[in-house]
Amino acid sequence: MTKKINFYAGPAVLPQAVMKKAQEELLSLNGIGLSVMEISHRSKDFDAIINSAKDKMRKLYEVPENYEIMFLQGGASLQFGMLPMNFLKGGSADYVNTGAWAKKAIKEGKVFGNVNIVASSEDKNFSYIPKDIKVSKDAAYMHVTSNETIGGIQYKEFPQTEDVPLIADMSSDILCRKVDVSKFGVIYAGAQKNIGPSGVTVVIMRKDLIEKGDDKLTTMLQYRTHAEKGSLYNTPPCFSIYIVKLVMDWIEENGGIDAINKINEQKASSIYEVIDDGDYYKGTAAKEDRSIMNVTFRLPNEELEAKFIKEATEAGMIGLKGHRSVGGCRASIYNAMTLEGVETLCKFMKEFKKNN
Amino acid sequence: MTKKINFYAGPAVLPQAVMKKAQEELLSLNGIGLSVMEISHRSKDFDAIINSAKDKMRKLYEVPENYEIMFLQGGASLQFGMLPMNFLKGGSADYVNTGAWAKKAIKEGKVFGNVNIVASSEDKNFSYIPKDIKVSKDAAYMHVTSNETIGGIQYKEFPQTEDVPLIADMSSDILCRKVDVSKFGVIYAGAQKNIGPSGVTVVIMRKDLIEKGDDKLTTMLQYRTHAEKGSLYNTPPCFSIYIVKLVMDWIEENGGIDAINKINEQKASSIYEVIDDGDYYKGTAAKEDRSIMNVTFRLPNEELEAKFIKEATEAGMIGLKGHRSVGGCRASIYNAMTLEGVETLCKFMKEFKKNN
Repeated sequence: MTKKINFYAGPAVLPQAVMKKAQEELLSLNGIGLSVMEISHRSKDFDAIINSAKDKMRKLYEVPENYEIMFLQGGASLQFGMLPMNFLKGGSADYVNTGAWAKKAIKEGKVFGNVNIVASSEDKNFSYIPKDIKVSKDAAYMHVTSNETIGGIQYKEFPQTEDVPLIADMSSDILCRKVDVSKFGVIYAGAQKNIGPSGVTVVIMRKDLIEKGDDKLTTMLQYRTHAEKGSLYNTPPCFSIYIVKLVMDWIEENGGIDAINKINEQKASSIYEVIDDGDYYKGTAAKEDRSIMNVTFRLPNEELEAKFIKEATEAGMIGLKGHRSVGGCRASIYNAMTLEGVETLCKFMKEFKKNN
Repeated sequence: MTKKINFYAGPAVLPQAVMKKAQEELLSLNGIGLSVMEISHRSKDFDAIINSAKDKMRKLYEVPENYEIMFLQGGASLQFGMLPMNFLKGGSADYVNTGAWAKKAIKEGKVFGNVNIVASSEDKNFSYIPKDIKVSKDAAYMHVTSNETIGGIQYKEFPQTEDVPLIADMSSDILCRKVDVSKFGVIYAGAQKNIGPSGVTVVIMRKDLIEKGDDKLTTMLQYRTHAEKGSLYNTPPCFSIYIVKLVMDWIEENGGIDAINKINEQKASSIYEVIDDGDYYKGTAAKEDRSIMNVTFRLPNEELEAKFIKEATEAGMIGLKGHRSVGGCRASIYNAMTLEGVETLCKFMKEFKKNN
């Protein structure tokens, strides 16, 4: 079989080097005669894995020492509720509405307190990131969605929230570029787009906030539980964390976040250049807010879009259909998508345009 | 390297056939050119996996149609809180205290209402299962821990609770034997002992209970969310579910639950026979409550125990140290432990006794 070029929005492509290493070691981790799935989460072998995943992420992403890196379960979807459960407690919080993912966070925020939508791009079908966002004085926190996979929009600068903690859902763009972690109270991300398989959620949280979380909650829903036990209060999703560790190795071997970001920028601009060359393709996101992770575009009509997706699939490029809520096409080009994969797509786009 | 014989309490040994199949398919699931970790949880390929895992478990475990099988995240530890959060709501529930795992469930129950300890074996260091347990009339449910990994005790018969739903934590013995699922309101289990790797939790719940759960909770903590969406409300732990599916295939190929149970009984009695032959080894659990999953025993003194564990490890048998809270030795012999593995241990035990 030929290796497919995988443009799915997530779970998404993983680095081939990582998949090969995982395959090699599947029956015997480091030659110990056991699979990583068969060892105790309290064994020294697993300890080395989780610590390496954490330490390398801290180094690569420049996470300051006053932040905890936790590996939790339940995806961003559980975080949508767990964050306000811990920090809203009947108070008020600011949310920015930039699309489907922001809306999900907003819905769960409302379960625990007053949600103040301080900015929204719903007026233009979530095709841009609101600017000059002001934080409310009484907000427990401000919540933003760093990248929206459906609209294909991404913050280039984050709101200044002064003393109010900024919480960012970075599920679809964590580690795609450098960010100043110290400007955030919390960064969280389901792993399955940029850093691993589904089943593990990374939460990077400022330590003083961990202490402020509600201490009346069931143990598993208190961040302090996981912070105090180094994400080993209960059995963690060991295999998923192992893959995250291999992805950290891969980022490191590829020169770190800046190097990865450079390739990400190059991949994105290659596709946007094809889109902007004439009127055939039309990018749906405001130019200044275009995501470097999810490139959304339309063709002259829906028939051509269907044909485009069909022929691309036949040529080995899969997952190019836009989300059903907006239609059109979308190329998700997370960290693990290769430059060659994107070049193949660009070539295909140019030829399709010529022939149709 | 030699394959180790893995007696760890969990994450534990997985069937070698499953590990080999997972390794073969890691880079290309069913020849599609993508890893199971790289495909959408809404793709037809993953749909086939999750449905097969569910359908086979239903068939093998004889789960009636009025029960939902859900694949959640967070382990039994999250269920300890999520169950009372949904069903206790300030009321009263019965709990049976049989050891460390029951205690954890009890602790989280207390966060949400009144916990009534209707029976306990704490008086004899959790070495037996309380009998003739009576259910309270006003109980929202009764909670039991089917098997305690530390004490090495296991219910042979479950309490009769009449109209009160019986909730059982079967993390350490699910699918080790046939149970009459219709006698339970809820059966739940972290996968990492008998049915897969860590990172996925199976919840088998009677459908009328799902409807009765609190509907004011954050979406992810309501069972109806997962029941309605077939465990696909959000991205599930795809790889872990895939392994569960392979384990179900393996159980089926090995003749189903009764056949597996027969081997489990044979494995357990082989070890208990060695223990009961003379005074050298001493089983710590009451004979009638002995677990067929975790065999706990002592040697004449702690020095000999340390020597036993050391020499067993050198002979390739690992994980035989008892839990730090009770000391001694423990052989965890879940479904995937082979008869040959147990025979090797029995032979070693006999020789060690002769030489020491």
